[in-house]
Amino acid sequence: MVDSSLVPPTAPATAPTSTATAASSRVGATPPVGVDGPVRPRASTALRPVPLDALRLDPAGLLGGWQRRNAAATLPHCIEQLDRSGALDNLRQSGDRERPHEGMWFSDSDVYKTLEAAAWQLVSQPDAPELVSFVEATSRLLASVQDGDGYLNSYFQQGQPERRWQDMRDGHELYCAGHLIQAAVAAGRAGVGDALVPVAVRVADMLVDRFGAAGIDAVCGHPEIETALVELFRFTGRRAYLDLAARFVDLRGNGLLGPGRFGSAYYLDHVPVRQATEFTGHAVRQVYLLAGVVDVATETGDASLLAAAERLWESAFGSKTYLTGAHGSRHRDEAVGDPYELPPDRAYAETCAAIGSFQWNWRMLLATGAVRYADEMERVLYNAIGGSTALDGRHFFYANPLHLRTDHNATEDAPSQRLPWYDCACCPPNLARLMASLQGYLATADDTGTQLHLYAAGTLHTPHATVRVVTEYPWHDRVDLTVESHSSRPWTLALRVPGWCAGATVRVDGADIQQRATDGYLRLNRDWRGTTRLTLTLPMPVQVLAAHPRVDAVRGCVALRRGPLVYCLEQADLPSGVVLEDVAIDPTGPVDTVVHGTTAPVPVTLQAHAVAHRGDDRDLYHDYPGTPVEPTPLRLTAVPYFLWGNRTPGPMRVWLPTVIEPTPRKEHQ
Amino acid sequence: MVDSSLVPPTAPATAPTSTATAASSRVGATPPVGVDGPVRPRASTALRPVPLDALRLDPAGLLGGWQRRNAAATLPHCIEQLDRSGALDNLRQSGDRERPHEGMWFSDSDVYKTLEAAAWQLVSQPDAPELVSFVEATSRLLASVQDGDGYLNSYFQQGQPERRWQDMRDGHELYCAGHLIQAAVAAGRAGVGDALVPVAVRVADMLVDRFGAAGIDAVCGHPEIETALVELFRFTGRRAYLDLAARFVDLRGNGLLGPGRFGSAYYLDHVPVRQATEFTGHAVRQVYLLAGVVDVATETGDASLLAAAERLWESAFGSKTYLTGAHGSRHRDEAVGDPYELPPDRAYAETCAAIGSFQWNWRMLLATGAVRYADEMERVLYNAIGGSTALDGRHFFYANPLHLRTDHNATEDAPSQRLPWYDCACCPPNLARLMASLQGYLATADDTGTQLHLYAAGTLHTPHATVRVVTEYPWHDRVDLTVESHSSRPWTLALRVPGWCAGATVRVDGADIQQRATDGYLRLNRDWRGTTRLTLTLPMPVQVLAAHPRVDAVRGCVALRRGPLVYCLEQADLPSGVVLEDVAIDPTGPVDTVVHGTTAPVPVTLQAHAVAHRGDDRDLYHDYPGTPVEPTPLRLTAVPYFLWGNRTPGPMRVWLPTVIEPTPRKEHQ
Repeated sequence: MVDSSLVPPTAPATAPTSTATAASSRVGATPPVGVDGPVRPRASTALRPVPLDALRLDPAGLLGGWQRRNAAATLPHCIEQLDRSGALDNLRQSGDRERPHEGMWFSDSDVYKTLEAAAWQLVSQPDAPELVSFVEATSRLLASVQDGDGYLNSYFQQGQPERRWQDMRDGHELYCAGHLIQAAVAAGRAGVGDALVPVAVRVADMLVDRFGAAGIDAVCGHPEIETALVELFRFTGRRAYLDLAARFVDLRGNGLLGPGRFGSAYYLDHVPVRQATEFTGHAVRQVYLLAGVVDVATETGDASLLAAAERLWESAFGSKTYLTGAHGSRHRDEAVGDPYELPPDRAYAETCAAIGSFQWNWRMLLATGAVRYADEMERVLYNAIGGSTALDGRHFFYANPLHLRTDHNATEDAPSQRLPWYDCACCPPNLARLMASLQGYLATADDTGTQLHLYAAGTLHTPHATVRVVTEYPWHDRVDLTVESHSSRPWTLALRVPGWCAGATVRVDGADIQQRATDGYLRLNRDWRGTTRLTLTLPMPVQVLAAHPRVDAVRGCVALRRGPLVYCLEQADLPSGVVLEDVAIDPTGPVDTVVHGTTAPVPVTLQAHAVAHRGDDRDLYHDYPGTPVEPTPLRLTAVPYFLWGNRTPGPMRVWLPTVIEPTPRKEHQ
Repeated sequence: MVDSSLVPPTAPATAPTSTATAASSRVGATPPVGVDGPVRPRASTALRPVPLDALRLDPAGLLGGWQRRNAAATLPHCIEQLDRSGALDNLRQSGDRERPHEGMWFSDSDVYKTLEAAAWQLVSQPDAPELVSFVEATSRLLASVQDGDGYLNSYFQQGQPERRWQDMRDGHELYCAGHLIQAAVAAGRAGVGDALVPVAVRVADMLVDRFGAAGIDAVCGHPEIETALVELFRFTGRRAYLDLAARFVDLRGNGLLGPGRFGSAYYLDHVPVRQATEFTGHAVRQVYLLAGVVDVATETGDASLLAAAERLWESAFGSKTYLTGAHGSRHRDEAVGDPYELPPDRAYAETCAAIGSFQWNWRMLLATGAVRYADEMERVLYNAIGGSTALDGRHFFYANPLHLRTDHNATEDAPSQRLPWYDCACCPPNLARLMASLQGYLATADDTGTQLHLYAAGTLHTPHATVRVVTEYPWHDRVDLTVESHSSRPWTLALRVPGWCAGATVRVDGADIQQRATDGYLRLNRDWRGTTRLTLTLPMPVQVLAAHPRVDAVRGCVALRRGPLVYCLEQADLPSGVVLEDVAIDPTGPVDTVVHGTTAPVPVTLQAHAVAHRGDDRDLYHDYPGTPVEPTPLRLTAVPYFLWGNRTPGPMRVWLPTVIEPTPRKEHQ
């Protein structure tokens, strides 16, 4: 049964509105009809996202290329793997108590994330029959296996129904329901898979009955349902979903889950979020929870909740974030560690946590307009997220270390190469859904004008203008923009100046203008009538970076960054016989930028003065400072971190020891 | 049924022999009767252990004090905890299928290790009625619950008997059997708990039937049975036990266990030990296996097996050992990491692995006579093992990190304080059995003379002499020895010169003698008739140590060591408001030794020049080298690592950052 109330109500006047006919018209020569992408706040926010079809990425650009690769390789690969892994069969044979469930007990979520990816992809690529048929068939499948009361979870339907909702801590039932809802919202916004929204609404209504204010007090061990319910509220306008999300946020932190194997903090159930001061626990759960917290805070106007998210953001980005933007330094419980505990070699840095951080920061950006959130989106996108997918789009890292050691034989769950799939396959379809909707996270627009946060070649339609962006960013520092305004009144084009960038300049129709950034944005307010050509230059000299001295794991090391891209040293670029860990860089010397061109396998490499020591025959411990080892000069070539492991598997490191030799020890007195 | 063949056969003539009446006579004014301690090779070995009753430690000395504390506190505490944890009840109600098994499925091993500890303790303290009654009652209990076929394991007896031997990988049945056998051998040698040896023999005979050459090919996921069977062979003379141990060693590494959750290497089943080149996998399992490997190699004269153990020793101590002698850098699988992966804060460094390393090195020392094994015994004993027990003898570390970070809230399974017990309680009773038999690991003796490996105040009886040792080692560098020889022929007294020591000297009856160490021992060959007084001086200036440059985690740091004792900096010794991680030491300055006396809480502290930086408000990452922060001079006080956490729980670190400032970066050209 399709409920007529599911047609989204009118959205605030400041942004375009989804319609049920969204899929019938796409971006191109004509302006967008306004298909909402992920995160479309109903309440007033500092920034308003543009519709998903308002921006078309140019596949010649880096982000557009990633999106094209996602459509051509990752998404079809995920669909294939759903069959191969048994995840789809689990649903197809749901209720068959004789058939054992295959894979993880939350394998349904792999299906849902892939569905979500396909729905988003169909916004920019409606002529993809295989995607349409996947979405339609899977939606019908889900409708057909949903129980009468709305329950839908192949693991508990195949298994013992009496076990439903008995293991809120580890059962992942609400987590799976959340991803189902997210998929349905995507399908609903994209206007595909008509069967899916009703399925999700039945699930959500069941949850409201069971867990709402009149129901039982419970939360899910793995956050996800919170943000999903808010998105469903946004799509349907039904307040009950928002209320339930808010209730889940408020119930958390009161020990409802019990300590479990890893303690309450692992589940973020150790302290209510409003009182929390430390970003901690299972990294993915922490960032997913915070995305939901910001969603709830945004829609309810709850300032104290937003303040909690800001406080935890400061904990996260002040002392618990890798240079690549990744989170999570512990393998044992996939968790964030103590402040400044950021070992490069043992970085867990799970891909899903990076995706969750991107989504959390996007919500913070919309809520507050503060540039620091866009800075973190850029950092994590170009490094931690970018590096998790192989160039072929069909191999993935689950953990994203910043140092793969020589003789890495104790591989545990951090393999030396990207793998085609994982037993716990959360990351690949998560990448697919992010990349398929990537254009939804780059720009915002409202009555006052248009704001560009992340730069990518493509064309953006806003109520004020069409903005064509031509750039080889992040390889080159120049972003050319052609603004065709169709507004008769002045408006403001805000161009983000990345936190790493000093000396940004902008030329308008060939003339330098003196414009200083305010709060991280160059804000150009003018009468834009007609066509205006701008050139934004974001100088990107190589930065030699050091870490806070409390980051013990990288003491005496530097890292190279150019623009948003963190670089790394790979064994593949070292002379034969030189062990990666024996190389030291001269941090005081020049670092050259070598441009190979955007069609080269590595468009820009960096070269620095370095030396190689032969250290293998030394004792493990020795008197300080020890006998100096004659160094061999070396020209070090560094490549972007996100490209590592694409030539040959092998050792890699982001943080490079410096050549500085310790001072000889004075004799005792 | 007591088998008369259980009376140990005659041992080689070079060492005293156990007898069934051993418990009736003890060390004191009269010479020992010769109660074998742990590890009593039948085959010829480079060194021969002295009987357990041949050495009595002086409780005023550090090691004797630890042993007294063990008897007074740790051992009674373990016995109490066996009741409190349900481990004894598991056995008492073995076979009751209605009662759920409490605690870990291998909780029987806690009982066995405590039994073993009590048996060893009764050798030096026969007048301990509560120990006698614990041993007697528990032995009778075990005899009463053993199945007719010899099977004895409360978990599988309470549970489904059909599950026996079905999970060789994770069931720990042979592991538990091994500890039962070790306890029985201890009881048999000590002459207590008469019921225990027959129980163990029935178990072992069942294992020979089931897993011997005529039985099935299998190994246990957790090594322990190997060394236990060799010890039972040594005690009973029954070759079948040695053959089965050798068979288990040879079957291992062929993938019989399957990969399990953590992969074959975790179980040391990834490669046959004879072909293994890397010390790896679960740290406790690796060292336990290697103890068994050396036992088998020793008794079978298998040179290739001993060579494998030596190769793995070089891997372990060349690139995978903490400065404290501990092993295991990974929490997730309690495992050894990659070469040079030795993070101080995330050191797992499990207590049981340290104990296992001590036992492995003792076997290597006996087999080869090479001093490096005694050096490692000393290092791990005084640091990793010593630090695992609180001063009260009733609180323990399971993990022994070398850095407890400020704001250590993400405690996981590495709490900031020693705990009275653990759900997985392997470590406390393991400490108890080691400490109760500690005097068995310090000296050796044979036809040629007596060898002292670890120095401790006490009295040693050997076939040649009575040697009284008076020393405050390791606090002071002087070891006084009084040798009362009762041999009419010249013999050699060999005194180990620790690897950390340069310039050791020895005086004989007040006269300096020119004696150089050969192969790490001062070997004094003379006619010792009458009484000779020696003074051995082992100079122990403070050593400022650095690590191999590939140990990334401690780059730019030094550690302080004096004699065998590694020192650390505790928050308790810092001025209020100074954060541990902000302190840097001047590694070129003098480090003073401050002697407080052996009755002081910390007998010797070290003082060094240091500074404190205020680093908390800096960005997590910044341009190199960054703005210098004005340092505040500080007098740093360091305490022995083994004493940390006894005053107040709080941050601690062994590796101290040095004050050396990076060079400012040259401008780009």
